[in-house]
Amino acid sequence: MPDQWIVSENHFDPKTAQAYEGLFTLGSGYLHVRGSFEEHLFDAPQNLDYTRRPANVTSERFLETKAKWGTYIPGMRGSHPLLNRGLVNLPFFLELTPFAGEEKLDLEASRVENYQRELDLKTATLRRRLTWHTRLGLVVEVSFDRFVSAAHPQVCCQQLRLVPDQELRVRIEAGINSDVRTSGYDMFSTVELAQSEPNGLRCHVVTNTGDEVWMATRHYAPGAVWQADSDRRVGRLKADFVIPAGESLVVEKRTAVTSSFDANKIDPGALLANLEANSFTQLHHQHAAIWQMRWDKSDVIIEGDETSQLALRTSIYHLLRSHPDDPRLAIDPKGYAGDAYRGCYFWDTEMYLLPFFLYTDPPRACSLVEYRIHSLPGAKNNAVNSGYRGARYAWEADVDGTETCPNWQYRDHEVHVTADVVYGLAHYARVIQDEGFLTGPAAPVILETARYWLDRLDWRLGENHPSLLGVMGPDEYTPISSNNSFTNRMAAFNLAMAARLGAEIEATVAECQEFSRAAQGLPILRGNDGVLVLQCEEFEHLAEPAFERFWKDRTKAFAVQAAQEWLYRSKCLKQADVLMLMMLFSNEFSDEEVRRAWDYYLPYTTHDSSLSAGAHAIIACRLGKMGEAWKFWEKSSLNDLDFQHAGAAEGVHIAGAGVNWQMAVFGFAGLITAMNSDVFCLHPQLPPAWRRLAFPVVWHNIPLYVDICRDQVRVLNRGEGALPIRMYEQDLLLKAGQEGVFELRNDWRI
Amino acid sequence: MPDQWIVSENHFDPKTAQAYEGLFTLGSGYLHVRGSFEEHLFDAPQNLDYTRRPANVTSERFLETKAKWGTYIPGMRGSHPLLNRGLVNLPFFLELTPFAGEEKLDLEASRVENYQRELDLKTATLRRRLTWHTRLGLVVEVSFDRFVSAAHPQVCCQQLRLVPDQELRVRIEAGINSDVRTSGYDMFSTVELAQSEPNGLRCHVVTNTGDEVWMATRHYAPGAVWQADSDRRVGRLKADFVIPAGESLVVEKRTAVTSSFDANKIDPGALLANLEANSFTQLHHQHAAIWQMRWDKSDVIIEGDETSQLALRTSIYHLLRSHPDDPRLAIDPKGYAGDAYRGCYFWDTEMYLLPFFLYTDPPRACSLVEYRIHSLPGAKNNAVNSGYRGARYAWEADVDGTETCPNWQYRDHEVHVTADVVYGLAHYARVIQDEGFLTGPAAPVILETARYWLDRLDWRLGENHPSLLGVMGPDEYTPISSNNSFTNRMAAFNLAMAARLGAEIEATVAECQEFSRAAQGLPILRGNDGVLVLQCEEFEHLAEPAFERFWKDRTKAFAVQAAQEWLYRSKCLKQADVLMLMMLFSNEFSDEEVRRAWDYYLPYTTHDSSLSAGAHAIIACRLGKMGEAWKFWEKSSLNDLDFQHAGAAEGVHIAGAGVNWQMAVFGFAGLITAMNSDVFCLHPQLPPAWRRLAFPVVWHNIPLYVDICRDQVRVLNRGEGALPIRMYEQDLLLKAGQEGVFELRNDWRI
Repeated sequence: MPDQWIVSENHFDPKTAQAYEGLFTLGSGYLHVRGSFEEHLFDAPQNLDYTRRPANVTSERFLETKAKWGTYIPGMRGSHPLLNRGLVNLPFFLELTPFAGEEKLDLEASRVENYQRELDLKTATLRRRLTWHTRLGLVVEVSFDRFVSAAHPQVCCQQLRLVPDQELRVRIEAGINSDVRTSGYDMFSTVELAQSEPNGLRCHVVTNTGDEVWMATRHYAPGAVWQADSDRRVGRLKADFVIPAGESLVVEKRTAVTSSFDANKIDPGALLANLEANSFTQLHHQHAAIWQMRWDKSDVIIEGDETSQLALRTSIYHLLRSHPDDPRLAIDPKGYAGDAYRGCYFWDTEMYLLPFFLYTDPPRACSLVEYRIHSLPGAKNNAVNSGYRGARYAWEADVDGTETCPNWQYRDHEVHVTADVVYGLAHYARVIQDEGFLTGPAAPVILETARYWLDRLDWRLGENHPSLLGVMGPDEYTPISSNNSFTNRMAAFNLAMAARLGAEIEATVAECQEFSRAAQGLPILRGNDGVLVLQCEEFEHLAEPAFERFWKDRTKAFAVQAAQEWLYRSKCLKQADVLMLMMLFSNEFSDEEVRRAWDYYLPYTTHDSSLSAGAHAIIACRLGKMGEAWKFWEKSSLNDLDFQHAGAAEGVHIAGAGVNWQMAVFGFAGLITAMNSDVFCLHPQLPPAWRRLAFPVVWHNIPLYVDICRDQVRVLNRGEGALPIRMYEQDLLLKAGQEGVFELRNDWRI
Repeated sequence: MPDQWIVSENHFDPKTAQAYEGLFTLGSGYLHVRGSFEEHLFDAPQNLDYTRRPANVTSERFLETKAKWGTYIPGMRGSHPLLNRGLVNLPFFLELTPFAGEEKLDLEASRVENYQRELDLKTATLRRRLTWHTRLGLVVEVSFDRFVSAAHPQVCCQQLRLVPDQELRVRIEAGINSDVRTSGYDMFSTVELAQSEPNGLRCHVVTNTGDEVWMATRHYAPGAVWQADSDRRVGRLKADFVIPAGESLVVEKRTAVTSSFDANKIDPGALLANLEANSFTQLHHQHAAIWQMRWDKSDVIIEGDETSQLALRTSIYHLLRSHPDDPRLAIDPKGYAGDAYRGCYFWDTEMYLLPFFLYTDPPRACSLVEYRIHSLPGAKNNAVNSGYRGARYAWEADVDGTETCPNWQYRDHEVHVTADVVYGLAHYARVIQDEGFLTGPAAPVILETARYWLDRLDWRLGENHPSLLGVMGPDEYTPISSNNSFTNRMAAFNLAMAARLGAEIEATVAECQEFSRAAQGLPILRGNDGVLVLQCEEFEHLAEPAFERFWKDRTKAFAVQAAQEWLYRSKCLKQADVLMLMMLFSNEFSDEEVRRAWDYYLPYTTHDSSLSAGAHAIIACRLGKMGEAWKFWEKSSLNDLDFQHAGAAEGVHIAGAGVNWQMAVFGFAGLITAMNSDVFCLHPQLPPAWRRLAFPVVWHNIPLYVDICRDQVRVLNRGEGALPIRMYEQDLLLKAGQEGVFELRNDWRI
């Protein structure tokens, strides 16, 4: 039985190297580094200049390369001539390469056996073991260990161990390579590299937006004499060793990074100096202890299905890793494990990422919603730049909230994100049961966004209600539509909240009346049967999508097989739109309405967005369509582990990771969110393969532990106060320390 | 009274230099060169690299520069990293600069008086005269003359004359400068420059698409000893002269160009050698004689309004100049006087340019329609690339018909161009009265385009008629609409023609039935009153455009003041859409319908497209709204002469030039086109200022001369056969040589 905390790569294949690089990203929130090999691969240059154009990332073809380095500090950006500002790919500092004589360790050219690489999710540690049969006939056991310290988030620790069967003359090369590109573009205006201390290097880069990063690295090995061998863009130290037969050489490399975004400026060399008294093992213990605390708050146990268990832990690992723990920052769609989305922030933050933190670690959720409060000035600028009052949150937000989306159809039309932000604020306030958050720190956001909506909506001639025209809903294949139900409901939520809070958020009486009138007037369109919720006014007048003609290969996205023009004029959906609305406002729609929408939209839905499966799985659970729910669970949960396709090559699907957690907790465990229920309430329905589903959850500030087996569900109150809960229409007050045990009514349907 | 053949610049102003450069473009159809100064201007480098991005040219901000060189051979292209293939800006060969001692003639730095520059429209000659007070105290009369030979279309002749009041030591520098850019990008992969003959230079460039151009230039001056002073990108010869007081130095420069597009490869040096026996004056006579023949066929006389007379002649001059007389080529929107539209071919060809040639010089019209036949393979590729059968003509066509439009909203959605092409073919066949053209050379175009439409249209659920969904009509501010009436009618025209010609164009019986059914089924939408023709299904559901809020400065385009998102969701029109339909199919709509459309759409129309005014003027004439017609005439006819705005800075508005002719002939003279009348028929209504409007016109292969005064209209049959004509409901058979004289019923209304 494989250890369900270990993601393994059992043999090296250049075809999947990039996918493992993304999947094996390590990070501390502050610093993230992709799982690239210390010795790199042959013929995979990282300094290629090329023109990356604005495109739909879903159908974009990325540069083909075996390896893609990625070193990211959230908040550190550069400017691209076509793609606007975005996360900069920083110098690569992992280099730690052994040469046996003149033979460089090279996973393609060298003779290597017993290759094994493991990401230990529990301790966020990456390990590699292999046996190297050198050309000179020696057999060398090689191991690499690496972690980015949770205890010292600016520090990455690496260790290389070599054990030869005969005396080995080995050279170690280690360095910092600043000759890297971001989206094919060199974003550094200044690069400074120098040797520091006999065993160290320093690197200072300034990006073309003026952001600055300092790196210091130190190398430790017994008896090493390090020689510099650097050029303008690559700093490198070399040392020669002789390892007696059967003995081992351990080389350690520690790197510290700091940036101009830091509140307290510290010298990275001093950081390393402070840690010199700590051994690698000690540092790893400190690191692992913090990860254990994180897992205690968030681990989801799935018994009976090892694949699902490992997949969900992988998702949670990346969620825990990618959170920057800085209220000026959020989590980008690639979880700082790639720069495909240029490190910008999308609606993913509120819809897909926030719930995991809300229900497992509210302070970390707070940090995410605070990002939106911090970036309000940027959102206000966006509104001005679009010709509107108030605040318009960006479809692709820079750290300061500035709109950076290079594609006008998303930038101009996918406006729902502004209301999604407010939904997120409200969700946070509900979970922590603090209306004061809304009338306090969040007040300006609620007021200014409502002002934006008021200005953005149209009152058409001959109609006595407002409309939102020219919008794109979550389904990005209907680019310019009228009265998209999702967008209307979200905007109405935003307006209604502003109207309700009124004077408490400094809205005038007249404004509140307008907010209220607009909120009440924005229509949710229905079909002729009065039951079907229409995606938008135009939907029924679009062409049938003709999947049989255009979608020959269902294993690939529809968008890579059909012309964009066809996506835009046919009923094909990229992802859940009305169903997403019904998921977010589940108590506003009857089962009949949800079933009707499911039946109507599902045949049109391509699930080209990896986020589509999650909403469908959760809705399927509501409707008792457990076969469908299982299908979507499998599709979504294995997304980053799908090496047949790109997997995590361009970064992990971090929003999908959040969705995976939601499928387990909101779907199979059936937790009704705080947005739709004032009382803690579960409707568990386990998939057949699952014997047990158990997880911690926080509800109204009270930590609970939910443990679902095939025959019963237990809810343990781990907090200090009593909590009312509801199971199968029965209400129960769960006292502190008390465990409620309920017989499971598992009405599983095929 | 100014000469109404002369466009004058009476003083130099750097602010308007670029506009005059475009306006004063000379060309032979084969070779075009902007009216740049021989000595250039200070601080206006032509080798700046910059990133020009895809944009709507209407609202694009171009690089600010005092001078913009432009040398174009239609068919010679290069590839741009963001803008696809397009016309390449070739090396600048006009340099011919006098230095008095070390003082270069410089219109900003030198003391210059009596500056006068004239474009002589009649002979297509550019002349400049000025008095140069040199820093050394001499007074030098300077004149430059230049023409691109109509008799030898590959040759440009220049002459510089200097007459000093005292003995002048002068150096002449003359050269070819290949260090030029196209849209900020260096498109040359190879540049070769060399001195040839003692007095000549050669230049050979290869573009990054493999197109090649060879240039040879020779300089003639008595006693000159030319010294080469070249670098890798600039070839230059220098010679020193001493001019006695009161005597003159004449320096002549001749340049010949050839290209890889030429059917017969000729050495440009040999071309020049062949012409050496001809003096500048002789060459000019040959050139002017051809222009006289052109004017005989096309000059429009306007008496009583010198401004209109000169404006319309300027338009006709550029139409005559820019026609490449090559059936593999058409005329780009800037008339080869700028590369703002990248030298590609739009629907302008059929809608705005073709009619002038159709009714003045049918063989030249034939050349334009043949371009579409030649480029059918490209159109078929476009269809395949979009996932359709048949042939889809490009919104922005390369020489070979390939779609090159870099903006997806136009490229994917502005599909009407395919039917516009067929309308043009039909128009040509009607004018020359040769159905055999349609069933002969044009047949494959008609068949393949009909096949495209059949595949492109949608049969929506629950409807028994086809629709065209996801289209952009002529109004580019409603980007993705359903059943745009203009597009539907044009597509139906195309389909109906294919159905009618049937077996003669090798369509199967089954196909013809489908073509016919589709043509009959495509709806022309009406408003509730049954009279208003709707632009598209969505139009009445768009927002009111709120011009009062967003359009503060009515002298500038709405699009530069409102966000694109606002253009796209409100009722604002960029240009005539339904009215354009009513102009093209004038006999299908009653006056009541046209008036209703006028009243409804005009308040929404921004006329951001320079082409809007023309359609409005013609419709206004039909409705007897002569005050409106005059307003639009003034706006359109002075477009290239509007130095308050950019004028012709980025190239002439050549489609607007065609529209100006149409306003005079279809509008004020009231000629019903051959698409709407089988018989020659006029409804003249002169503007108050005009005493006389007279022009030649060809109808059914018979040359006529129309002469409209305030009280009568005369139609002279200059042909060899009789022609039935109709005036004020009266039919008359006009015999060869006969002149019909009719009393003018000038029902002028304010």
